[in-house]
Amino acid sequence: MLNQHGPLNRVFHALADPSRRAMVERLSRGPAPVSELARPLDMSLAAVVQHLQVLEASGLVRSEKVGRVRTCRIEPSALRTAERWISQRRSSWEERLDRLGDYLAEQPHDPDQGRSP
Amino acid sequence: MLNQHGPLNRVFHALADPSRRAMVERLSRGPAPVSELARPLDMSLAAVVQHLQVLEASGLVRSEKVGRVRTCRIEPSALRTAERWISQRRSSWEERLDRLGDYLAEQPHDPDQGRSP
Repeated sequence: MLNQHGPLNRVFHALADPSRRAMVERLSRGPAPVSELARPLDMSLAAVVQHLQVLEASGLVRSEKVGRVRTCRIEPSALRTAERWISQRRSSWEERLDRLGDYLAEQPHDPDQGRSP
Repeated sequence: MLNQHGPLNRVFHALADPSRRAMVERLSRGPAPVSELARPLDMSLAAVVQHLQVLEASGLVRSEKVGRVRTCRIEPSALRTAERWISQRRSSWEERLDRLGDYLAEQPHDPDQGRSP
């Protein structure tokens, strides 16, 4: 469980930036060279490369240089780890609501309940 | 779309810290006073309150003070927004893989493919 901390820290930190999310969004539609990731972003290529490094360190993206072109692609397992963490919290919260609902439904109906004596 | 940036930045930033995730995890099992959120965390109450402020600013948690006790509870919509963003990226990536699989399946099988002439 403790081993999960580092990867989740890095994945959520990587996703906390809108430019990095735009890069993940583009890559979810297929691999792309860095120049294509940079095109819609209003920043220097150096800044894009820095964002890419954060994404690679988080495990969300990997890249490979062939000749002069670095091609990036998404690494789905990191995305799945983050999704699973959130969905487990949501399930846990919803189960609690269900149990609360069951409990309330089992209570005998008392029209006087809540009235002042 | 642009309006989504701020909330997602704050939610993912809030989730990038293991203490804040531990607080969300505890609250997904039901509301709790700040003192109970603090108990398993090895930090001052002031530090816990700071983390709580980040969680509240992200919309993941809200708290209410009654008398001397501040009770915290989860706010599921922010969690759902983050989950939806991730699952949409994953679907987009998986659809692409499916299309690629269909395309490859449609290609006539050629045992000579890939061989040197």
